[in-house]
Amino acid sequence: MDQLWGAIAAVCESWNTRRAIDYRKLHDIPDTMGTAVNIVAMVFGNMGEDSGTGVAFTRDPSTGERALYGEYLLNAQGEDVVSGIRTPEPITSLRDRIPEAFVELEQVARTLERHFRDMQDLEFTIQRGRLFMLQTRRAQRSGHSAVRCAVEMVDEGLISEEEAIARVPPNDLNQLLHPTIDPKAALDLLTTGLPASPGAASGAAVFDADHAEARGRKGEPVILVRRETSPEDFHGMVAARAILTARGGMTSHAAVVARGMGKPCVAGAHELEVDERAPAFAVNGRRIQEGEWITVDGSTGRVFAGKTRLVPPELSGHYSRLMAWADGMRHLRVRVNADTPADAHRGRDFGAEGIGLCRTEHMFFEGDRISAMREMILASDGEGRKKALAKLLPMQRTDFEGIFRAMEGYPVTIRLLDPPLHEFLPKEPEEIAALARETGRTVDDVTRAIASLSEVNPMLGLRGCRLGIMYPEITMMQARAIFEAACTVANRKGRVQPEVMIPLVAHVVEFRKQALLVRQVAEEVFRERQLTVPYLLGTMIELPRAALTADEIAREAQFFSFGTNDLTQTTWGLSRDDAGVFLPAYLERNIIDDDPFIQLDLDGVGKLISMAVGLGRRERQDLKVGICGEHGGEPRAVAFCEAQKMNYVSCSPFRVPIARLAAAQAALAERGTMNRTRATV
Amino acid sequence: MDQLWGAIAAVCESWNTRRAIDYRKLHDIPDTMGTAVNIVAMVFGNMGEDSGTGVAFTRDPSTGERALYGEYLLNAQGEDVVSGIRTPEPITSLRDRIPEAFVELEQVARTLERHFRDMQDLEFTIQRGRLFMLQTRRAQRSGHSAVRCAVEMVDEGLISEEEAIARVPPNDLNQLLHPTIDPKAALDLLTTGLPASPGAASGAAVFDADHAEARGRKGEPVILVRRETSPEDFHGMVAARAILTARGGMTSHAAVVARGMGKPCVAGAHELEVDERAPAFAVNGRRIQEGEWITVDGSTGRVFAGKTRLVPPELSGHYSRLMAWADGMRHLRVRVNADTPADAHRGRDFGAEGIGLCRTEHMFFEGDRISAMREMILASDGEGRKKALAKLLPMQRTDFEGIFRAMEGYPVTIRLLDPPLHEFLPKEPEEIAALARETGRTVDDVTRAIASLSEVNPMLGLRGCRLGIMYPEITMMQARAIFEAACTVANRKGRVQPEVMIPLVAHVVEFRKQALLVRQVAEEVFRERQLTVPYLLGTMIELPRAALTADEIAREAQFFSFGTNDLTQTTWGLSRDDAGVFLPAYLERNIIDDDPFIQLDLDGVGKLISMAVGLGRRERQDLKVGICGEHGGEPRAVAFCEAQKMNYVSCSPFRVPIARLAAAQAALAERGTMNRTRATV
Repeated sequence: MDQLWGAIAAVCESWNTRRAIDYRKLHDIPDTMGTAVNIVAMVFGNMGEDSGTGVAFTRDPSTGERALYGEYLLNAQGEDVVSGIRTPEPITSLRDRIPEAFVELEQVARTLERHFRDMQDLEFTIQRGRLFMLQTRRAQRSGHSAVRCAVEMVDEGLISEEEAIARVPPNDLNQLLHPTIDPKAALDLLTTGLPASPGAASGAAVFDADHAEARGRKGEPVILVRRETSPEDFHGMVAARAILTARGGMTSHAAVVARGMGKPCVAGAHELEVDERAPAFAVNGRRIQEGEWITVDGSTGRVFAGKTRLVPPELSGHYSRLMAWADGMRHLRVRVNADTPADAHRGRDFGAEGIGLCRTEHMFFEGDRISAMREMILASDGEGRKKALAKLLPMQRTDFEGIFRAMEGYPVTIRLLDPPLHEFLPKEPEEIAALARETGRTVDDVTRAIASLSEVNPMLGLRGCRLGIMYPEITMMQARAIFEAACTVANRKGRVQPEVMIPLVAHVVEFRKQALLVRQVAEEVFRERQLTVPYLLGTMIELPRAALTADEIAREAQFFSFGTNDLTQTTWGLSRDDAGVFLPAYLERNIIDDDPFIQLDLDGVGKLISMAVGLGRRERQDLKVGICGEHGGEPRAVAFCEAQKMNYVSCSPFRVPIARLAAAQAALAERGTMNRTRATV
Repeated sequence: MDQLWGAIAAVCESWNTRRAIDYRKLHDIPDTMGTAVNIVAMVFGNMGEDSGTGVAFTRDPSTGERALYGEYLLNAQGEDVVSGIRTPEPITSLRDRIPEAFVELEQVARTLERHFRDMQDLEFTIQRGRLFMLQTRRAQRSGHSAVRCAVEMVDEGLISEEEAIARVPPNDLNQLLHPTIDPKAALDLLTTGLPASPGAASGAAVFDADHAEARGRKGEPVILVRRETSPEDFHGMVAARAILTARGGMTSHAAVVARGMGKPCVAGAHELEVDERAPAFAVNGRRIQEGEWITVDGSTGRVFAGKTRLVPPELSGHYSRLMAWADGMRHLRVRVNADTPADAHRGRDFGAEGIGLCRTEHMFFEGDRISAMREMILASDGEGRKKALAKLLPMQRTDFEGIFRAMEGYPVTIRLLDPPLHEFLPKEPEEIAALARETGRTVDDVTRAIASLSEVNPMLGLRGCRLGIMYPEITMMQARAIFEAACTVANRKGRVQPEVMIPLVAHVVEFRKQALLVRQVAEEVFRERQLTVPYLLGTMIELPRAALTADEIAREAQFFSFGTNDLTQTTWGLSRDDAGVFLPAYLERNIIDDDPFIQLDLDGVGKLISMAVGLGRRERQDLKVGICGEHGGEPRAVAFCEAQKMNYVSCSPFRVPIARLAAAQAALAERGTMNRTRATV
């Protein structure tokens, strides 16, 4: 019998590894698994109440529980189980029906797991009470199962901690971190868009941010449906359970903000015809009115009609143990992109070791801040701007204090104001009229001011450090808010590590001029507060020119943070807001293998990053280098950052665990490569 | 006396060349020029009818004519001539007043010219009939004068042809090629913008392209004034003498088109408040109504009220001789950017050796072509597009035939359709209504179609080869037009060298797919015509990613043409249409030394180009490389292209002579460097 198992195992191994096998182990059984299975099946035939066939997993593929999981049919052939003609019975009942076979199956399962050191997916047949194995292979499993199996197999002494880490696909952690659609739920698919932010949610479709906020305040679950979102929809996104857009790609406003909030989002569902006036959307001949329930699955991009059963997230003890091992193995620090104290706390909960990107502009959209911001933008001179900025100063300072405290002494990279100013101005006539009233201007004046700020290509216009150069008072207000907050926290014995980041630098002199302003303000504040807080001053490398002249910039900047979203946009000449029209066709026709906004483009953007890291470190050996684009939580990009010997990656809160695991895997792979390299020397 | 001249000459030389001088030549005169002049002036004093003081050029600084040119005052001190208190007399009258001094001055002038081997600017004083020289230095001169002097000095044996070439600043040729404002005219300055396209013109201000065309047709000189221009203004620009815009930079639509047409243009005159409804513009407290005359000086960026006297261009024999020498010395070929047979002829007249950039889209704006183009864009499927494209085919073919013929066998690089399709669609309600009528659609349908094509960042959207990939029938129609035209010309015994250029490639597979289509069509046409025309298939390198992956692309593309406008936009993350708001401040505050759209940015964009040339030539040794952006006619960029060993530069027709001269200078400088390199080895 043992010999037979040996033969089967050998055949299985040959099938699994596609290597030549030792014929002597096989006795009379032919040498390919397929043939072997057929012969076993033919030889032993079947039929009768003590005969049957089935499939089984050595552990539960959805939970990872250590127990046989599967189903079988008595008096049937292998095909019958798979074909679905008869309903098979759960494997546990086999214990009562053919106890000897069941016990043997359990033994075989353990033997095969020990042999292959991994969870197996088995096919078997029972002939007149005797068990025969037809096939074994590595089992597919859910994220939950992958984590539990990996951890328990370490406990069982089957695999090492390193193997456990290497075995869990980082993106599978998404299933642990977000609600998912119950696999058994009946679904009514409407359309499929881009899986822009993972997780699933059901709620009433709402087509306007204000409606979303109003309904959300009443505790009603809503899903915000928009053609595309803009910063003005922010409050509606906060109130919604999920976001659905007809336009935009994986890094559109909706996608980025949703990922930051950890909310499900399906973006660029281009079949959707959103009629915001109705309000309703039409898709594939159906029409969904405001208030009708829909379900959005941001992990797959699917949109369903109606309410659907969800499985809640569960961060079990296995997860924590796995992550602890990962943290012990990785070199890369993992930070979070967080704009508010709440995000910062969430980031810490997910294990972030600092903030890699705090986008100060997101602070300007809430409540009465937007009014002060608009007043600043409409001011005709530096004095008027300073008056409005004075109103924003205490708000920013309070935010920074909260963020510094949440980060408990970990570094916090704060990016100075980045987006073009017209993003803060209203578009609708009523809002424009309201703004005119508030600021004591005529509607014509306000309309003209808005028009004068409009740009042909806002992505390539007056934004980033260009704003700070044209309006130095903005940079000075922001620097003051940062350093005053830092002093306040430091005074209360809190540790604080601010890193001030100057965005969109193309030329070293831009950096120099802005850095000078920031340093002046820092010295002023430190003098006023009789306290000095150490800080770093660096830049975001997000334009090809910054990467090409990284040596010059590194002479003046203490850190680089690669903004891979914008760097991808400029390197490819590809607007992420407009690419949705043709990028799907590019993927379909195999012009590109991956969406460069999801998978970091190593051949192009990666080459530029690699060049910049080299040039930068040549000038400044201790240059701190990180990545803070959307790619920061993407496993392949994390591996690239490890290879570049970066200091950290930074990503949205819910991707932090993924990045931690990916960083550990990258470190292991790197070590493997180094070992191999050493061995060949 | 001779000794004194020697001393003066030595002092002058020391001043001119800032070298240490031989004190023994100086006798008692101190060793700095300034002191020397003062001492000479003091020692000799003045006063009396046989005494005076004056300034003179050894040749006419505005025409180059070989004769003393200058003025003097009798009974006066040196300062009096410069101060303008008394009106000096022309130097020629000195011949009658103090004949001996005049003759001696002529001799001295010749002596000094021979000594310094260049035209001199002299100061002199006459004391009781005796001439004393106070100062000599290299004379500033106009473009006309520079060319004539250089050529005549070669004839006089003073300098070599190489020195003549090295001495004329290439941009000074602009003065020979365009009308200029009479230096003696009284001027009423309104404002100053960017000198976007050289030359001067006067005409009635007109604020609408249709008005410009209507008035222009009547022979009235008009100047088109717009906030900014778009392709829809094209017919108005054709009709106008000059163009003036309030927005946009040196490579805005207005600037590029104007330079292409050789029309004066002042762009980005941001003080201008254009009220297109009035129609009028306000500037610095003044108001100019439609129909009032203004003068635009595109060489300096100045805008004047009223009509002004102009000096017409004059391409004298001196110019042709100088250019012939230049052509004999340069390595770089010089091509022209030309979109029509007329441009192509003009390019040939200016000495272009081929077309480096033929923008096919400019062909689509004229007359009924735009209707067919719009029909194509609004078509809902490939069949509809093909039908509309069939109407465009014969028009394109005819254009290409004309261009091939005009180029007499020189290579013609034709770029496939590049701009986003919404550029071809109307914006005004009346035009939209008209388009709806023409195409049998509802206004709502057309409006919706236009909205669906609008983009957030059109520069980074659906354009270039992305169009050809989404709508392969466009590429096929254009390829057919090119090869049918080529066959027709070749059949009539004309030589023809088409080079088909695929624009905006970011990824090699984009090129591969488009190249395949073009080759298929070429083979089809050659089979139909029973004739094969050799052609090249290459790409425009205008995105950083194309430069970074130039090795991959060169494996498939036979030539690279650097589109430095777009490459600058993406490398800097800077929209040329929007940069006008802050770039002037950047220049003023010395953040950058030059507008990167005017002077090629060698540290950033240049580095990328250099990398791409290296990568490309490594894969394909005979890769043809050129530059076709606006920088192609800029002397410093031409020198860079020479250093990169490119095959050619290409620029707008009026810049072709400048590029020819700059290329000769670059070749001389390169030879000089090589000689020096050899000498030090």
